[in-house]
Amino acid sequence: LNPHKLQIMAKSRFEYVKKFEQDDRCLLGCWIVVRIDGRSFHKFTSEHLFAKPNDLSALKLMDVAACSVMEEFRDIIFAYGQSDEYSFIFDRKMSLFNRRSSKILTNLVSLFTSSYTYNWRIHFPNTELKYPPAFDGRVVLYPNTIVLKDYLSWRQADCHINNLYNTAFWEIVKSGKSHVEAAARLKDTFSSGKNEILFSEFGINYNKIEPRYRKGSCLFWIDKMTEKSPEGPDTVGEFITGGACKKPRVCREITVSHEDIISEVFWSNHPQILGQDIVNS
Amino acid sequence: LNPHKLQIMAKSRFEYVKKFEQDDRCLLGCWIVVRIDGRSFHKFTSEHLFAKPNDLSALKLMDVAACSVMEEFRDIIFAYGQSDEYSFIFDRKMSLFNRRSSKILTNLVSLFTSSYTYNWRIHFPNTELKYPPAFDGRVVLYPNTIVLKDYLSWRQADCHINNLYNTAFWEIVKSGKSHVEAAARLKDTFSSGKNEILFSEFGINYNKIEPRYRKGSCLFWIDKMTEKSPEGPDTVGEFITGGACKKPRVCREITVSHEDIISEVFWSNHPQILGQDIVNS
Amino acid sequence: LNPHKLQIMAKSRFEYVKKFEQDDRCLLGCWIVVRIDGRSFHKFTSEHLFAKPNDLSALKLMDVAACSVMEEFRDIIFAYGQSDEYSFIFDRKMSLFNRRSSKILTNLVSLFTSSYTYNWRIHFPNTELKYPPAFDGRVVLYPNTIVLKDYLSWRQADCHINNLYNTAFWEIVKSGKSHVEAAARLKDTFSSGKNEILFSEFGINYNKIEPRYRKGSCLFWIDKMTEKSPEGPDTVGEFITGGACKKPRVCREITVSHEDIISEVFWSNHPQILGQDIVNS
Amino acid sequence: LNPHKLQIMAKSRFEYVKKFEQDDRCLLGCWIVVRIDGRSFHKFTSEHLFAKPNDLSALKLMDVAACSVMEEFRDIIFAYGQSDEYSFIFDRKMSLFNRRSSKILTNLVSLFTSSYTYNWRIHFPNTELKYPPAFDGRVVLYPNTIVLKDYLSWRQADCHINNLYNTAFWEIVKSGKSHVEAAARLKDTFSSGKNEILFSEFGINYNKIEPRYRKGSCLFWIDKMTEKSPEGPDTVGEFITGGACKKPRVCREITVSHEDIISEVFWSNHPQILGQDIVNS
Repeated sequence: LNPHKLQIMAKSRFEYVKKFEQDDRCLLGCWIVVRIDGRSFHKFTSEHLFAKPNDLSALKLMDVAACSVMEEFRDIIFAYGQSDEYSFIFDRKMSLFNRRSSKILTNLVSLFTSSYTYNWRIHFPNTELKYPPAFDGRVVLYPNTIVLKDYLSWRQADCHINNLYNTAFWEIVKSGKSHVEAAARLKDTFSSGKNEILFSEFGINYNKIEPRYRKGSCLFWIDKMTEKSPEGPDTVGEFITGGACKKPRVCREITVSHEDIISEVFWSNHPQILGQDIVNS
Repeated sequence: LNPHKLQIMAKSRFEYVKKFEQDDRCLLGCWIVVRIDGRSFHKFTSEHLFAKPNDLSALKLMDVAACSVMEEFRDIIFAYGQSDEYSFIFDRKMSLFNRRSSKILTNLVSLFTSSYTYNWRIHFPNTELKYPPAFDGRVVLYPNTIVLKDYLSWRQADCHINNLYNTAFWEIVKSGKSHVEAAARLKDTFSSGKNEILFSEFGINYNKIEPRYRKGSCLFWIDKMTEKSPEGPDTVGEFITGGACKKPRVCREITVSHEDIISEVFWSNHPQILGQDIVNS
Repeated sequence: LNPHKLQIMAKSRFEYVKKFEQDDRCLLGCWIVVRIDGRSFHKFTSEHLFAKPNDLSALKLMDVAACSVMEEFRDIIFAYGQSDEYSFIFDRKMSLFNRRSSKILTNLVSLFTSSYTYNWRIHFPNTELKYPPAFDGRVVLYPNTIVLKDYLSWRQADCHINNLYNTAFWEIVKSGKSHVEAAARLKDTFSSGKNEILFSEFGINYNKIEPRYRKGSCLFWIDKMTEKSPEGPDTVGEFITGGACKKPRVCREITVSHEDIISEVFWSNHPQILGQDIVNS
Repeated sequence: LNPHKLQIMAKSRFEYVKKFEQDDRCLLGCWIVVRIDGRSFHKFTSEHLFAKPNDLSALKLMDVAACSVMEEFRDIIFAYGQSDEYSFIFDRKMSLFNRRSSKILTNLVSLFTSSYTYNWRIHFPNTELKYPPAFDGRVVLYPNTIVLKDYLSWRQADCHINNLYNTAFWEIVKSGKSHVEAAARLKDTFSSGKNEILFSEFGINYNKIEPRYRKGSCLFWIDKMTEKSPEGPDTVGEFITGGACKKPRVCREITVSHEDIISEVFWSNHPQILGQDIVNS
């Protein structure tokens, strides 16, 4: 036998190793949540001189990367982002990749990362990307809509708490204090205390700050015919995609808004997002 | 209570959702293999006009991305790449990320993707990256060294079979035949037949083709003092990193070579790679 | 050092092996179903001369074993049994054994088996148990009440289909035909055909057969004050336990009935079983 | 349509619920260990007046139950028992039940429990079994022989430590002290101290105590032709089964011995148990 024949035989002889792969399909009927987080972004943000407490370009770049992911994986019904993290919610009936956890997870993390890196130059035309950024990710399953909403509320409450702290911290720093002094000042304050500092010392009404910073970003699909964005307090709807209408029958666009999703108002204003077929379950 | 206090209370009220995360730690004592594959690379390679059957720049870019991953995650003891895929082997004793599968997997896939996108311009100075590329990944556990080597042999046998086919296919196409004709010509041929076609019709001795194309790329650590690369038939050792010596005591470099890893010769030439502490297990 | 000291040191040296145990906790928020099946019961029933198509003593013994399990694991809110199988439903909020799958599963299977063997003599006073019977088991998670009810409907539909077939089969056999002839007669008949055979040839109105045989057994808790069993068509409620009131505050008893659980009527008659706190989810 | 037809249609409509079952196959190439433990055996042993510190009948009943399991599941190559627990080791190449964890686990636990209950009367002719005993179980995977032996050593070291303590404890109690006094006496003693107490106060040389109590029980297969049991210090080989030769070609019997399995001597005396094909791995 010649060596090539031997190698083909070898290949089939070695193929048994595929059987060591383990099935990791997500339980049917559950909402699949993928959360992506920046890896070592403390270092990344300081190396790239991100504005503090919030860098608008960086947040918009996150939204763009998330939007690429939603455009590509159209079973994603909702995404929520804040700081260096993004959560994606898949329709609980979705069957993409046979619901295999690793496959879903790596595709999302990879495309998100790639899109972030690819679009860097557009959002940071004057800042060279010094090294490739990375994100990690995880899959979490939620068996019903109540817990799913609590998950999203948890992330938005986290956004609020961090942003209030950071806003106060950086105002104190900008006023001439050291990082240590600013931290000491805020230690043991409640939210009301931080609000008070911002208002009385820096003339800032926290509730007037950009909703984007206070609430994070909500991405979801709307019918293209609906030309107007949902309005109301704390709502800034902007259409960020125009080309999603690949098939005339599924003519829909992603919208990004910065709304309160802890309250039920958001969900009753957008009943199509989580669907109605299994009421509240 | 003011709204901010309510939201902080809310945050802790919502934190129970963390308990839905499931433990995915890799079984102790097993070799952890992460294999990364290009997503929709058939389309990607044609959109970016990759040379056929092999694009040297593209393969080198893969090696560079893999090298970034090894530099960052130094528990990786070996990596093997071919075409649009790369496999990374972790020391079986490693405890990075508490061996959590998702954490390991997403960090690798993300950094690989990011590095690929980031370094594109260096390897393709004249080809604009049209859209962000993506990779998926999986984790497989191998309980002993015999099966681990069979895994690597499986990937290298795959490289061989595909490359022989592709080499013959594209020679036939370059000679003026259509894709359909070329495929028909090769259908039902064995390796010997493809070798014969290459030799008699195109004057190509397949065994003289670049080892990189026939064997893929092997990345592993060598002590920096060892200035010479391992030599022998089919071996092309090139140092591709110079800066790995972060700590003087762990002064080692990644080397890339294109050798036969199916034969035991490679492993006995490099006994340090898989280690000796549990002989053959 | 003396040998005993060495062995104590050894014990702690060996204790690392505990770390190879893997976490198998059931996803929170899901209904946990454990289904137990007789192992090789075809052989077991013929060795012990079970009556055909149904052996009343054997079915009652199954109910008794299931009842022991419910008495011991009081987070079980419902159990359904037919033939040689039993399904147990745990409250979806239960935290017994930290929801560890193996722990839950083996405790149930073991106690069920033990109780079956232990109580054999009471139900089969004239039949020696020839060898120890065995059951296997599995855990399945259902994220919402709709799917859970469909699971139970699936088992009851299975009971119906098998019992109708078996009833017809054994009547034909008792009339003097061979097993092969009986099977041939029933091949390709629908339910209506089997009903027709039973009625026209054997004077049996299938719908008048014991509900226990047609519907299987439903076990659930009722308050002890409720002295009357739920009634209605197809319902035979019998109190089979008297001692469940261990604590005066949780004074409840298990009842067994043989009702239709595919229809919604059963569930709306017993709203306490699946609970109301998360409506329909 | 008649109701029966509807129920058949219903059955297939409900069958989707089977898809919620999750794959739990054990990783290939690993030793599969099933450990079974008595549930609430503290209560069980006192209710049934087990002799202290060791009840010979109870230990023999455990061995018999374990033997039933090995006779039935002939891929078990070794079992080790002590106190109210038993560990079963499957050949690492075994494919029984497609290596599904729940299936393997529940079959073993159920048959063990059943056999224990069934054979109670033979070993306790004068003690009524007051209620059905139960056992729980778990599956643990060990990727190589070194760790597997360490697992077994861990269980035997545990046997030693507990038995030495219990032997001393019950001698003190028999001499007229209370349980509290006996515990206080032994608190903070090392092995040497307990040996010293046994020897100087009760004239007991611990090393002369029955190997069964000090070492636990080892069950493994030997060829029937080998009429003699393995001998040496601490070895008591007894044939406990006579009927294992179902097929003339696989004529082998289970032997039970009470030997030291922490030392390598046992394993080199019985090289056939763990096999030689992957040396030490």
